[in-house]
Amino acid sequence: MNEALIQIGQQAKTAAYQLSLLDTVTKNRILTLFAEALIDHTDDILAANQKDLQNADQMPAKFSDRLKLTEQRVADMAAGLRQVATLPDPIGNIDKGWQNDAGLMIEKKRVALGVIAMIFEARPNVTVDASALTFKSGNAVILRGGKEALNSNLALTNILRTVLKQNGLDQNAIQILHDTSHETANELMHLNQFVDVLIPRGGAGLIQAVVKNATVPVIETGAGNCHVYVDKAAEAQMAVDIIVNAKVQRPSVCNAAEKLLIHQDVAEKLLPPIAKALSDHGVELRGDDRSRQIVATIKPAVEADWSTEYNDLIMAVKVVDDEQAAIEHINRYSTGHSEVIISDDYQSGQEFLNQIDSACVYVNASTRFTDGFEFGFGAEIGISTQKLHARGPMGLAELTTTKYIIRGNGQIRK
Amino acid sequence: MNEALIQIGQQAKTAAYQLSLLDTVTKNRILTLFAEALIDHTDDILAANQKDLQNADQMPAKFSDRLKLTEQRVADMAAGLRQVATLPDPIGNIDKGWQNDAGLMIEKKRVALGVIAMIFEARPNVTVDASALTFKSGNAVILRGGKEALNSNLALTNILRTVLKQNGLDQNAIQILHDTSHETANELMHLNQFVDVLIPRGGAGLIQAVVKNATVPVIETGAGNCHVYVDKAAEAQMAVDIIVNAKVQRPSVCNAAEKLLIHQDVAEKLLPPIAKALSDHGVELRGDDRSRQIVATIKPAVEADWSTEYNDLIMAVKVVDDEQAAIEHINRYSTGHSEVIISDDYQSGQEFLNQIDSACVYVNASTRFTDGFEFGFGAEIGISTQKLHARGPMGLAELTTTKYIIRGNGQIRK
Repeated sequence: MNEALIQIGQQAKTAAYQLSLLDTVTKNRILTLFAEALIDHTDDILAANQKDLQNADQMPAKFSDRLKLTEQRVADMAAGLRQVATLPDPIGNIDKGWQNDAGLMIEKKRVALGVIAMIFEARPNVTVDASALTFKSGNAVILRGGKEALNSNLALTNILRTVLKQNGLDQNAIQILHDTSHETANELMHLNQFVDVLIPRGGAGLIQAVVKNATVPVIETGAGNCHVYVDKAAEAQMAVDIIVNAKVQRPSVCNAAEKLLIHQDVAEKLLPPIAKALSDHGVELRGDDRSRQIVATIKPAVEADWSTEYNDLIMAVKVVDDEQAAIEHINRYSTGHSEVIISDDYQSGQEFLNQIDSACVYVNASTRFTDGFEFGFGAEIGISTQKLHARGPMGLAELTTTKYIIRGNGQIRK
Repeated sequence: MNEALIQIGQQAKTAAYQLSLLDTVTKNRILTLFAEALIDHTDDILAANQKDLQNADQMPAKFSDRLKLTEQRVADMAAGLRQVATLPDPIGNIDKGWQNDAGLMIEKKRVALGVIAMIFEARPNVTVDASALTFKSGNAVILRGGKEALNSNLALTNILRTVLKQNGLDQNAIQILHDTSHETANELMHLNQFVDVLIPRGGAGLIQAVVKNATVPVIETGAGNCHVYVDKAAEAQMAVDIIVNAKVQRPSVCNAAEKLLIHQDVAEKLLPPIAKALSDHGVELRGDDRSRQIVATIKPAVEADWSTEYNDLIMAVKVVDDEQAAIEHINRYSTGHSEVIISDDYQSGQEFLNQIDSACVYVNASTRFTDGFEFGFGAEIGISTQKLHARGPMGLAELTTTKYIIRGNGQIRK
């Protein structure tokens, strides 16, 4: 094992201990100072980012746009830090407390996880977001960002670390790997002695690589093959509005809808206006035979379409026999992120809510609401699509754990 | 990948779906029928167990005692099933609910995890305990018990599966691997497509092997290097009583105390009576130089003693400079299970509760209370020593997850 990485792990663990004891007022003050320092050093950040952009001149526009920082984007990062300062601090909450049969007072108290590692792609804003959320929740963070963003990330973390140091805090609360090799990322996935949880953030390829390789506990985030099911009792205009919103309002994100299922009894009536509205927004439709018999412009779908997250202006359509067929299809192909039924029937809505096995299940609303801000949690570290520890939008509370504190007066077990 | 194992995984997933929709009355009725069926088939169970015992005649007495079933032990298993029937069902609870800014009604509802796999040693009672707890919490289970107990485990699961079948339920809610090879156990650790969580239960070797190999999410249980720290403000008799209870009441279990730390200001006064009481109960003491200068019969401890879980009548002793030294020692060597301070000083107790990073932190009580029944949860599936998902005694609630159900009336995101 890489000696430098072990040292980073040890430093993170030491810093985590100090962080776990910090009060909320101090944490909020530091977050505000982080924001001010970013603004003050905007020129340095943009200069470092310029180096990354120059190195990345072969990169597709989609990636270089994510990598690029501007004065406005630095201001947005600072605003994000200030917003995290305003969020309630989960640390110290007593989730429940009771007296047991032997008279012990047992309390389940919310505490920091300890050391959180994050592996992510070349998006410098994740560096700041992740630092803010882990710091506020009392955790140390080890960041491993995409190599294309290394100069930007070093500039950003140096500014944050300087603020920590100037305020008498352990600057190793926030560390970033300078070595962006795959070997070192792989070793980070095996740093069980120091890392309490690893959160990958990025495309499906990155996340699956982490899940397959890591021995440290991982939280899977962000895979979103989201479905909208139009029930036979759907209201026509609501169906059009929700589907268009879920598909086109921001097609590149994980809570955008990718699949449309429609009940056979209403497909002839509702599919043409839905297809028209989607086409008007530039969406390419791919469908099964039954949908193509109704709307001839729909291209044929292949099996792989049903499990693909396009993150693009593409949607696959299937006509289903009934609600049960829709539920079976979704539970088979979904990534377990967000699914919607559009229906005015009480029973259909209940069945969908009960039987769909996903993090967020909606009646009559857009999948685009699966989001920390929309849920009222504030900034999020990701959307968990696994069942362990956290499911759905992960805010500050999901970056904590609990411990039992027990007060007795000499109790022994009989 | 093993075709038979994939089929078991698929069958478990199908059964889990049915189980997740069962009401509590039905689940409790089946648990009671499980209990009756075990009693009715006691002779079959004992005959199968006899085969295992004959095959295991080279086994150390400690292991064959765990393997051995008697009429009383079968009755105890049945009583355990009936007890699980009386526990509150966590499924369907709404942990919280609120209306968001857009008017969506969001509820966080408790649901089953899905498919739980368990890998455990040759203890047939775990087969029944695990089946009861996973069934009550609406999960399908895939059991992989020690090969020495295979006949007993097959007899037990056949009885439970017959009850399921006779009551129109999917008998694959409870499956046990007939193939007890290491290869198949290893493949089970990689069955991510079907297994939602894997809980190993057994010795440190088994658990570490699972943590290192598995790609499915794992909950680590049962490693218990528990500490008692005697503060300078400790009450003498309380210290003796708690230490003796924590060490000797049941030394083979994970919540037994393994280490004793004592403040230097009271070591000369308190260590001799504590050492005498422990010796009277047959405990071998191993200590640092300072403790051996006070009590000459203490044998010398080596570095490995500080991290060893003895599960036996052995305890290591160290004299510490102050409470901070005790806290540092514990946070360095502990497995994060249960730690105790004995003190009548308010400030010392608070510091210990705040700064110790373990699942259960006590003031003035025995570590032996870290237990599902003692906490009031009823039967437990294990004691989690990790921070993700569950920490401390894991009852029914820890075998569940949540999903968000969201009711709207046409909301789209602006």
